[in-house]
Amino acid sequence: MVDIHKDFAEHSIAEFFKKNRQMLGYSGKIKSLTTVVHEYVTNSLDACEEAGIPPDIFIQIEKLGQEHYKVTVEDNGPGIPKKLVGKAFGKMLAGTKFHRFQQARGQQGIGGAGCVMYGQVTTGKPTKVTTSSGNGTIYECYLTIDVKVNEAKITEEKEYSGQMRGTMIETELKDVLYQKSDQNSDEYLRRTALANPHVKITYINPENLTTVYDRAIDAVPPMPKSTQPHPKGITVDDMLSMVGATTARTIKSFLTTEFSRMSSAKAEEIQKQVSFDMDKRPKDMNWQDAEQIVNAIKKMTFISPPTDVLIPINEKHLEKALENILKPEFKSVLTRPPAVYQGGVPFIVEVALAYGGKAGISVADGQQLDNRMEIMRFANRVPLLFDTGGCGLTKAIQAVEWKRYGLQQDLPLTVLVNFTSIHVPYTGAGKQAVIDDEDIIKEIR
Amino acid sequence: MVDIHKDFAEHSIAEFFKKNRQMLGYSGKIKSLTTVVHEYVTNSLDACEEAGIPPDIFIQIEKLGQEHYKVTVEDNGPGIPKKLVGKAFGKMLAGTKFHRFQQARGQQGIGGAGCVMYGQVTTGKPTKVTTSSGNGTIYECYLTIDVKVNEAKITEEKEYSGQMRGTMIETELKDVLYQKSDQNSDEYLRRTALANPHVKITYINPENLTTVYDRAIDAVPPMPKSTQPHPKGITVDDMLSMVGATTARTIKSFLTTEFSRMSSAKAEEIQKQVSFDMDKRPKDMNWQDAEQIVNAIKKMTFISPPTDVLIPINEKHLEKALENILKPEFKSVLTRPPAVYQGGVPFIVEVALAYGGKAGISVADGQQLDNRMEIMRFANRVPLLFDTGGCGLTKAIQAVEWKRYGLQQDLPLTVLVNFTSIHVPYTGAGKQAVIDDEDIIKEIR
Repeated sequence: MVDIHKDFAEHSIAEFFKKNRQMLGYSGKIKSLTTVVHEYVTNSLDACEEAGIPPDIFIQIEKLGQEHYKVTVEDNGPGIPKKLVGKAFGKMLAGTKFHRFQQARGQQGIGGAGCVMYGQVTTGKPTKVTTSSGNGTIYECYLTIDVKVNEAKITEEKEYSGQMRGTMIETELKDVLYQKSDQNSDEYLRRTALANPHVKITYINPENLTTVYDRAIDAVPPMPKSTQPHPKGITVDDMLSMVGATTARTIKSFLTTEFSRMSSAKAEEIQKQVSFDMDKRPKDMNWQDAEQIVNAIKKMTFISPPTDVLIPINEKHLEKALENILKPEFKSVLTRPPAVYQGGVPFIVEVALAYGGKAGISVADGQQLDNRMEIMRFANRVPLLFDTGGCGLTKAIQAVEWKRYGLQQDLPLTVLVNFTSIHVPYTGAGKQAVIDDEDIIKEIR
Repeated sequence: MVDIHKDFAEHSIAEFFKKNRQMLGYSGKIKSLTTVVHEYVTNSLDACEEAGIPPDIFIQIEKLGQEHYKVTVEDNGPGIPKKLVGKAFGKMLAGTKFHRFQQARGQQGIGGAGCVMYGQVTTGKPTKVTTSSGNGTIYECYLTIDVKVNEAKITEEKEYSGQMRGTMIETELKDVLYQKSDQNSDEYLRRTALANPHVKITYINPENLTTVYDRAIDAVPPMPKSTQPHPKGITVDDMLSMVGATTARTIKSFLTTEFSRMSSAKAEEIQKQVSFDMDKRPKDMNWQDAEQIVNAIKKMTFISPPTDVLIPINEKHLEKALENILKPEFKSVLTRPPAVYQGGVPFIVEVALAYGGKAGISVADGQQLDNRMEIMRFANRVPLLFDTGGCGLTKAIQAVEWKRYGLQQDLPLTVLVNFTSIHVPYTGAGKQAVIDDEDIIKEIR
């Protein structure tokens, strides 16, 4: 018999995503270029906002040859400590946000490293990182990912004096394409500006056209607070994972300190429904115990989760952004009250309508090429340009009987939907994927 | 300024896929149950065939409670060496097939471990593995994945005397659902039987109904040969990766020994187009050298890649499978000649039509509930039940003007398409995703 096991080997996450790069958004030449811009801009915005800095982002895409481009993204954020540069951009699944229970644009710790990898496998060139905290010393290096072991390879490190605060990243890419498309970087950044009125974006596209989206508002939105999970949204496995990290001394105090909306009275109510003493230590909680608690919670009612952990764009700011960018003849903006899906996950839907002016046009240069109605989807202010058809947000908007309101689909109309939540229920792979949850669709309609 | 980097941490691939389980096919209760059956059956078929054993697979799904099931899959394969059991089922990205250039059902080394993880996070229970090479000793253990470090945790190991050859795996699952659906395990296994006439399948479904799909043919299909890449299908990064593994002493001999259809004459032709001496050592090849070679190849013509590395179902066998399972009044089967996509990747399309009998019915028990035409898609004999709408295979079939052939879509008609290739160009995540390549769609039409 053949020994079918002789070639047994282990592979790194970086090898996996090199082979399955479509999972990270690298499928198709146009989409791949937009993915790189999306990942770097997302990193920059998150970094600036976490540090309380009004973001000022510079993006340039230069055409170097056929299907060959260079993407530069520079921010005015807090910079990246020298010792973390390799991990931030040269190692997949390293980052600060993976386990947080907090509204955020990116979360996985893969995006930036994915760009570096796509650059290196298509051009053989490293990505250049320049960063400084503003302390007068600038750190610069070139990096690639050692795919076999998922570790950064850093070369040409330099430190020198100079005034800079923020991070600049430069990546060369091949097998990507810039062309007129409502899925290109022009459109991605136009939408980013619309949903982020506190951000200044300066963008030079491959045709050397410079577009500046000025801030429509000055204040950085309050940083979304990290929250505790709501009892209704928790699984048995979640609860056991939380038990491993708690400092509470009894299961009862674990429940009241680690969950939102869990009063002592509620914990007592649970105690009555379970067969074990909740004064025992959390680490003695086994699967059956946790399952009893989760089942008890299912039968109980709790106050809805706090919604101040969600930071929507907000009506006034969204109006200003529409005026600033679309200059419509007519506009209407609505931030709906917070709602809950999957039992305990709060979310907020915002809808904006703009008619006339530059609305309904899918190009960034203002030239009116197409007057059809356009739907702009966002999740936590991140434009979702892909997988339009299968997305619950699209379906909800398309289900509206526009004609009843006297609106034709061939009018210069922009419909914007922003979904804000701690957890975005993507149904597919990647961050450009789709939302499809009945509670959410109902809320939009 | 806030230190936004203080929580910087690294995460394991298992943590990533626990959080992003929809990427592995775990989205929706019905799909999740089918995914588990798919992964285990795929592992079993690959193991049997690699060892030259006609597969005899037993599958049972027992209902244990509400949305709570146990899946058992047993094969008559070569068994798994004791020291590899943990890696095969309890560690993601471990396996034998990741880097092969060979037609295969599964490749990633994630599928089995994904099932174990889904079982443990929904039930808290380990997966039981029983395996033997047929040498009189049976090895048994329970395993879970230590998600934080992506390593198997094995408990209750046992070895005892007994006659068995093969592997049996038992996993309990919650948050899954069995119900009548053309995406359930009944349908998955019916289609598996159709595309694999050499396989015997015994299946007990949650309603305790036993279905036996007997072999329609006795011989195990020849094992697809591992092949060498065709020059036309290679990227610069691929070439540099190959250089790391070659034993050839010059770049010229590297080209002629590691690629298919690369004669000495062709290598000489390349030498004339590049600016360096191809007698230098392969490991001295840099990005620019490799790029010159790839560019030279683009301008040259090569004989098409060998297609004997592809093993389609074949017309005679597919006919037997249709007779065996669908018992149609009329049938027509066509295995098209091999074709090539992306320049150098060979593929074969097979199309079968069955009319009447049990054709066009999407339930496994033979009860005629629905007479509409059904489209069955397969990639390397694996049924693709999901993402139907976005799939190039579906589009190609729907584009056929059935009425011109006197066929209505409400007739009891089964249209089967099997796509066979070394590389299946999925556009989305997971193995249930879609194929969308112009060359391929053309070939089906």
